[in-house]
Amino acid sequence: MKKINIPPSKHVKVLDGQGWVGLIDQLGTEMTILNAARVSFGKMKESMDENDIVLLDYLIKNKHTSPLEHIVFTFSVHCPLFVRGQWHRHRTWSYNEISRRYTEIDLEFYLPEKLRKQAPVNRQASVEWENCDFGEFRTMMKEHNDRSLKLYHELLAKGVCREQARAVLPQNMMVTFWATVDLNNLIHFLELRDSEHAQWEIREYALAIKKLVSPVIPNVAKILGWQD
Amino acid sequence: MKKINIPPSKHVKVLDGQGWVGLIDQLGTEMTILNAARVSFGKMKESMDENDIVLLDYLIKNKHTSPLEHIVFTFSVHCPLFVRGQWHRHRTWSYNEISRRYTEIDLEFYLPEKLRKQAPVNRQASVEWENCDFGEFRTMMKEHNDRSLKLYHELLAKGVCREQARAVLPQNMMVTFWATVDLNNLIHFLELRDSEHAQWEIREYALAIKKLVSPVIPNVAKILGWQD
Amino acid sequence: MKKINIPPSKHVKVLDGQGWVGLIDQLGTEMTILNAARVSFGKMKESMDENDIVLLDYLIKNKHTSPLEHIVFTFSVHCPLFVRGQWHRHRTWSYNEISRRYTEIDLEFYLPEKLRKQAPVNRQASVEWENCDFGEFRTMMKEHNDRSLKLYHELLAKGVCREQARAVLPQNMMVTFWATVDLNNLIHFLELRDSEHAQWEIREYALAIKKLVSPVIPNVAKILGWQD
Amino acid sequence: MKKINIPPSKHVKVLDGQGWVGLIDQLGTEMTILNAARVSFGKMKESMDENDIVLLDYLIKNKHTSPLEHIVFTFSVHCPLFVRGQWHRHRTWSYNEISRRYTEIDLEFYLPEKLRKQAPVNRQASVEWENCDFGEFRTMMKEHNDRSLKLYHELLAKGVCREQARAVLPQNMMVTFWATVDLNNLIHFLELRDSEHAQWEIREYALAIKKLVSPVIPNVAKILGWQD
Repeated sequence: MKKINIPPSKHVKVLDGQGWVGLIDQLGTEMTILNAARVSFGKMKESMDENDIVLLDYLIKNKHTSPLEHIVFTFSVHCPLFVRGQWHRHRTWSYNEISRRYTEIDLEFYLPEKLRKQAPVNRQASVEWENCDFGEFRTMMKEHNDRSLKLYHELLAKGVCREQARAVLPQNMMVTFWATVDLNNLIHFLELRDSEHAQWEIREYALAIKKLVSPVIPNVAKILGWQD
Repeated sequence: MKKINIPPSKHVKVLDGQGWVGLIDQLGTEMTILNAARVSFGKMKESMDENDIVLLDYLIKNKHTSPLEHIVFTFSVHCPLFVRGQWHRHRTWSYNEISRRYTEIDLEFYLPEKLRKQAPVNRQASVEWENCDFGEFRTMMKEHNDRSLKLYHELLAKGVCREQARAVLPQNMMVTFWATVDLNNLIHFLELRDSEHAQWEIREYALAIKKLVSPVIPNVAKILGWQD
Repeated sequence: MKKINIPPSKHVKVLDGQGWVGLIDQLGTEMTILNAARVSFGKMKESMDENDIVLLDYLIKNKHTSPLEHIVFTFSVHCPLFVRGQWHRHRTWSYNEISRRYTEIDLEFYLPEKLRKQAPVNRQASVEWENCDFGEFRTMMKEHNDRSLKLYHELLAKGVCREQARAVLPQNMMVTFWATVDLNNLIHFLELRDSEHAQWEIREYALAIKKLVSPVIPNVAKILGWQD
Repeated sequence: MKKINIPPSKHVKVLDGQGWVGLIDQLGTEMTILNAARVSFGKMKESMDENDIVLLDYLIKNKHTSPLEHIVFTFSVHCPLFVRGQWHRHRTWSYNEISRRYTEIDLEFYLPEKLRKQAPVNRQASVEWENCDFGEFRTMMKEHNDRSLKLYHELLAKGVCREQARAVLPQNMMVTFWATVDLNNLIHFLELRDSEHAQWEIREYALAIKKLVSPVIPNVAKILGWQD
């Protein structure tokens, strides 16, 4: 058996190589969107032309989003627990995740390359930290990760069950999950998560998803300005 | 452009050839279900063996339904309006339908081969009608369909808008829609609609769907007893 | 037992008195929205002041919609079948409806006071019809309704089951249903249905809902410009 | 302003007093379920009698669940992060939660009174641990919590933003959220979470919810066997 922590062939690395998003599979193409939309008009087409781009543009800009729901993507995601917490708030996705009740293997912890400063005004935001040596912070965090993992293994060794022992592991623990979503709800996710209001870490994942799906739906990507 | 009322290549006829369900496309295979489930265990496999059938059986019988959500089907459906009313109560599907605000072409009406009697006890059920000549009923209904369509065209000819004129068309009017759903929610639909509590007409569609998807997910079909 | 076709005490009539929407019950107030939002800040308040209006305005204008989901309304609706078809496309509502498999009582049909003309350019739109005597149209439609109902009763009298006989009834048949929805999804419904792109008939229902809920959530109504 | 970490007046304590669930508000009563169901029959009633219990029993046992969706509850929940992770997998609830991007106040960590042993056969289960002095485990965990919180405050003091600093906090961190759900989906949650397959900690919350809502829907509770 293959370890699940290995990304699939099509994937994009994020968080300085510590995380990734992979594209597992997809349902439908841009032609599917157009044919789903044309059901309304009682028509169908076999191949795409200039008028189709105009129709795609019209559908997306006028929020006629139902035809987009026949396009579906399955991703695999490797991200810190606090990113997963934000991701799972999106209730239109289907998820399957490594259960830490079930296995203690392959534990990893996210260690940021750079830290950010608390924003001076916006209470929930952060700002870039220029001219700072992050070595001290990284050492503190690295030692904490190691200590936490050591404690976890001590508890397991003494017989404590995995589902309770994991409680001592920090929220930068990496998790791996599969996630399936339709294009309409994916666009909504990307609007919220590739945004300056989003935490930098989840925004990295949103950008990676745009890279992965843009070649599959190039005209949609262009209409939504993802190439910018 | 192709007329939308023509079924796709893979389809099953129902209601004595007056309706059909077609399988447009699908996401994932039974191997996808197993790999999605194994994400929980931190493992993945490339091909299927006997243990996989055991796991599939376990997942389905113990209602571990989340791995089934990574399998998605897109159907096209041609059915009477009163069947669509029952279908659209299922809110986990994505739908696109011919709009009768938009087009007046290709109007058809369902004319049952056989009528059923009101059930003597169960107020919402019907029972088979043996030794009955349905010719009279069919003539009455056919004439009504023709009169309704004639009135509709008269209203249109006098300038009345389609969205109001359609109000005179009977509920046996045929509609065509695309519908996308994941396997978990499809199974739930089939439990309710391939049931003796369901109206015979929608049950025909549920049975047709079982025929269409069984070759794609043969072990799931077997576990659920669809081949019986 | 009370007939269900009678509206509840709080209701608004629409379609020249032929239809209505009633407000059955509600969960939460504007204070609930604010307290749900303040959970994020780790705070709660007992009563409302000027700052709260500012926060409400901010939440709605910046699409921080999750706090709105703790406000829920239950409506009862009496509308033509073709309006229900449009309504039930909204999959975030919970519905219960009179089943025409179960009962044949209280059948009514919508007879428009005024007809509209097909729009000259926009294929799915209609335009007002000035200086037109609608008497002829109304007579044609009224006679069609009567004939359809007569045929329905003939079929029932001969023993045909209700679930099949109803197929001859026209799409202007009135239906009655209960519908429960949270405020976030209600606002989305109203944006789409109180719009110039919507059919006039369902727009009437959207406007009636605004009238019913505005006194309950007056600041939200003001922020969204419903009083205009 | 009131601190959000204080439970509402109606609440049940769990996890040895470290967590709680509170009932904030509710929509509808058992009479609502019955009237929603009777919409199908074209009837309504004002008060409840013996036949109503029979109908309730029939609806629940035959999975006619749509009338249950007009009953809605809002809870506030104070639980460990790893319980919230399991809870938020339920996508039919509406959630609002204290954001640790926004505030660093009132941090608490769950410290179990008793530990459980890893189950010998079932890889994801735990079993009771008899005749064990948990003092040593609790000291190890308590010291880890204190060290983690100290590191968190050090990072904040040096200017690190909250959204990154929280990554060092362990998964037994307590979180507080509001959660709204309808009765149909609540029952489904309780089936999965008040189960021997569920982790003991979330099961405590499921049991607390049953205690809170049973007085509100006594007949439903009896039909589902919650009093046992």
